[in-house]
Amino acid sequence: MIKAVVWGENIHEQTSDVVAAIYPEGMHSCIAQALNADAGITATTATLQDADHGLTLARLDDTDVLLWWGHAAHGEVSDVVVDLVAEAVWGGMGLIVLHSAHFSKIFKKLMGTPCSLTWREAGERERLWVTTPGHPIARGLPDHFELESEEMYGEPFAIPEPLETVFLGWFQGGEVFRSGVTFRRGAGNVFYFQPGHETYPTYHDANIRKVLVNAVHWAAPAQPRRQHITEAPNRDVDEALEPITARGPKLHRPGEKGLR
Amino acid sequence: MIKAVVWGENIHEQTSDVVAAIYPEGMHSCIAQALNADAGITATTATLQDADHGLTLARLDDTDVLLWWGHAAHGEVSDVVVDLVAEAVWGGMGLIVLHSAHFSKIFKKLMGTPCSLTWREAGERERLWVTTPGHPIARGLPDHFELESEEMYGEPFAIPEPLETVFLGWFQGGEVFRSGVTFRRGAGNVFYFQPGHETYPTYHDANIRKVLVNAVHWAAPAQPRRQHITEAPNRDVDEALEPITARGPKLHRPGEKGLR
Amino acid sequence: MIKAVVWGENIHEQTSDVVAAIYPEGMHSCIAQALNADAGITATTATLQDADHGLTLARLDDTDVLLWWGHAAHGEVSDVVVDLVAEAVWGGMGLIVLHSAHFSKIFKKLMGTPCSLTWREAGERERLWVTTPGHPIARGLPDHFELESEEMYGEPFAIPEPLETVFLGWFQGGEVFRSGVTFRRGAGNVFYFQPGHETYPTYHDANIRKVLVNAVHWAAPAQPRRQHITEAPNRDVDEALEPITARGPKLHRPGEKGLR
Amino acid sequence: MIKAVVWGENIHEQTSDVVAAIYPEGMHSCIAQALNADAGITATTATLQDADHGLTLARLDDTDVLLWWGHAAHGEVSDVVVDLVAEAVWGGMGLIVLHSAHFSKIFKKLMGTPCSLTWREAGERERLWVTTPGHPIARGLPDHFELESEEMYGEPFAIPEPLETVFLGWFQGGEVFRSGVTFRRGAGNVFYFQPGHETYPTYHDANIRKVLVNAVHWAAPAQPRRQHITEAPNRDVDEALEPITARGPKLHRPGEKGLR
Repeated sequence: MIKAVVWGENIHEQTSDVVAAIYPEGMHSCIAQALNADAGITATTATLQDADHGLTLARLDDTDVLLWWGHAAHGEVSDVVVDLVAEAVWGGMGLIVLHSAHFSKIFKKLMGTPCSLTWREAGERERLWVTTPGHPIARGLPDHFELESEEMYGEPFAIPEPLETVFLGWFQGGEVFRSGVTFRRGAGNVFYFQPGHETYPTYHDANIRKVLVNAVHWAAPAQPRRQHITEAPNRDVDEALEPITARGPKLHRPGEKGLR
Repeated sequence: MIKAVVWGENIHEQTSDVVAAIYPEGMHSCIAQALNADAGITATTATLQDADHGLTLARLDDTDVLLWWGHAAHGEVSDVVVDLVAEAVWGGMGLIVLHSAHFSKIFKKLMGTPCSLTWREAGERERLWVTTPGHPIARGLPDHFELESEEMYGEPFAIPEPLETVFLGWFQGGEVFRSGVTFRRGAGNVFYFQPGHETYPTYHDANIRKVLVNAVHWAAPAQPRRQHITEAPNRDVDEALEPITARGPKLHRPGEKGLR
Repeated sequence: MIKAVVWGENIHEQTSDVVAAIYPEGMHSCIAQALNADAGITATTATLQDADHGLTLARLDDTDVLLWWGHAAHGEVSDVVVDLVAEAVWGGMGLIVLHSAHFSKIFKKLMGTPCSLTWREAGERERLWVTTPGHPIARGLPDHFELESEEMYGEPFAIPEPLETVFLGWFQGGEVFRSGVTFRRGAGNVFYFQPGHETYPTYHDANIRKVLVNAVHWAAPAQPRRQHITEAPNRDVDEALEPITARGPKLHRPGEKGLR
Repeated sequence: MIKAVVWGENIHEQTSDVVAAIYPEGMHSCIAQALNADAGITATTATLQDADHGLTLARLDDTDVLLWWGHAAHGEVSDVVVDLVAEAVWGGMGLIVLHSAHFSKIFKKLMGTPCSLTWREAGERERLWVTTPGHPIARGLPDHFELESEEMYGEPFAIPEPLETVFLGWFQGGEVFRSGVTFRRGAGNVFYFQPGHETYPTYHDANIRKVLVNAVHWAAPAQPRRQHITEAPNRDVDEALEPITARGPKLHRPGEKGLR
């Protein structure tokens, strides 16, 4: 059983009648419901407003895959929490970054790029094309499917070259976008998925829900959480795997930790 | 003419007799000298001790490729300068990260991973193998070459999968390392190169100097510095490339800037 | 249950006393036994000497993952069978290419490169390092493990840049090698794994057997076999997803198949 | 000075009035003219009808970058010539594959995949978007540009994951395509570029001509042609870079060539 946590910013659901009408229990709850409909996933939720944004070290340690939706308040997310999430990803936790979370602190931190793009909120049609048909995230999907209304996100999308591009998006107004892209950061799988503007019922769409379920399965770690991944251990000459003799000048005294 | 800046931490040259003896004018000066021997490069230097670490916005704007060597004082590098360097890279400036700068703020920021590794300072032999013989960074090099003494850096090296792996390192004590790896971050080319421990004469080695010259040529930008790369411009419905009519509810008022 | 087929050339087992002593039932049987010890895999074998090399279309259609070991007789493998295997991979069948099969027809066909390397048969020690610790193929393995005797395979290894490099090999005689690398070709996952010289007991090694089991799980298809992957279907104007009107001159008459 | 050869199939120019009217001297001549307008390139042409298709070993040895346009007669291209071209690419010759040459023998051989796609000849509008703005192939181009009429090529495009995706194509009828993608095969750079249907004046377009010029500069080899890239040389124990003693059983006698 894969343990997923759906993190939602949970602001526009409270401040916009439009969003509240589509997602009366919050976007995070809608997404979690989609995941819980899968027999192999058990999903809970966390929000910006929770203590520690609902993401303590203990909870992250017990999370296989974290999904992240944010838009209005990226800057209010605690740097401490962002660092905890990053370290969890490096150790093997999967991360699925949704829509406007392209500008979230955690995504920018893991990508090392601005993650900028162009956008237009016009309710236009988007058509998603599968570019890598055999990919687990595309399991059971047709070669293409449509969202009658989505926010346009356009290239150039300032991300590193992905490991694989799974979906491309076509927009009615003339733009294209790399809408589903995978990365590995340390031991953790990362998937960015572009659809999900809060004023449209995207997360009620059957194909979108299938993508999310597939992505959780794909992103789940293959191994127990890796510890100490930020450390650079010294391998003493005495322990060298092949017999060698120390020679030459030294900066470090025996047993000394490395500089950081 | 490619304008290169060699940034050196310049600490161990001042505090260690061993290092000072090998690099009497500083490692940065030795590297700059190697670059200036190439007819197509003009290299200057900057150090941690300079005002703004020698890296003002004006100077970065005028730099094609920045080389970065640091070890003892990564934490003393100003976050403001790191952010300026990152934005310059995203806009197209090349960046060459040397040896212990795997743990520099700028490299970790651009990679989005811990950049950790294992290490041993034993003066052991390293042999560098070219894995991508046609790569511009390997121009004029033999299939392999040796450094009689280098610090061992061992896998796992916590970096994202590189664009290309140009060199692998073999160490006498039994380890291997991805010693030369390329990345693109935004419009900027990034090259990490592992050799260069300060207690050995690595930057006097002819093959190493050839790699550095090649890498500067490879990393030099193909186009003028790209501006505003961190911004996400709105594309109004009125300006849509294909005629569309706005529909559906809206979060944003006309002309409003996007949320960040 | 994943259906694996282990294909063995089965020549040196018949002609060399040394090989026969290590693998009395053939290398393919030893490998199949390792896979069958896993509760999720059922493995059978096929050899060069079988009719159609044991690889009919019907059998390939029913195979999730094919493992391929060959050395002395790459040229004797039927081009018809190679084409069937390639099409099965493109449709989603996993393929694991072992040791000297770097020069097999099927691997060269799928890579599009010479797949050449350097080699030495000296019984020297190899140490395999995990470079991507979170990868499913590295599940349950230590950071490094040794084979007291392996054939040296050295860089440059003329393959395309892998999707991910999972293992690097260190050799006692001074070489390094990208010993475990992944690719996707169409819908199919491909893994090349370097150890496995027939005069050494490599496939009896517990770590090697674990890698093979992991690799079969990783390479197993996520979806049913994809059909018609070599075809380029015409999308008539009448069926266009967005309403368009045909205009301009035409090379093709309505309903005509494309040129190949 | 980069030496380019533009290879054209040169059939529809002879058999179709429409094509002949747009390209009276042949598409290959039009492309060569575009390249020769650049001070750093000297381009000649070769066609299917020439002896050896105009591509002898001597000419390939003297070619830095080969451009390839074919459509109606992929099957008539000699396998001998295809093998020569492949070996030239592996040795460092650049290759630019144009439009319908996605189904050429040489592209399929170098990719190891079917290179299939969907298509529609309806004169619809295509808009090309730059996804990697800093790439040398995008030098001097706007973020997007249009071709008022192009043949639609749609995903899924059965290619391996590219090294970098430089252009995405948006089509009026609702499809998207990875229209400009880079690969390395051996020492050779490969660029596939989708526009170029023979019934439209694509190769007269200023932006397209700029892409071709840029691509030739990008694809030009960094080093002299690499020889013997298909060979797997034995490294005798006597020549081992680190002193080792041969041990264990041997399949190969001293000095013997490896099996293929």
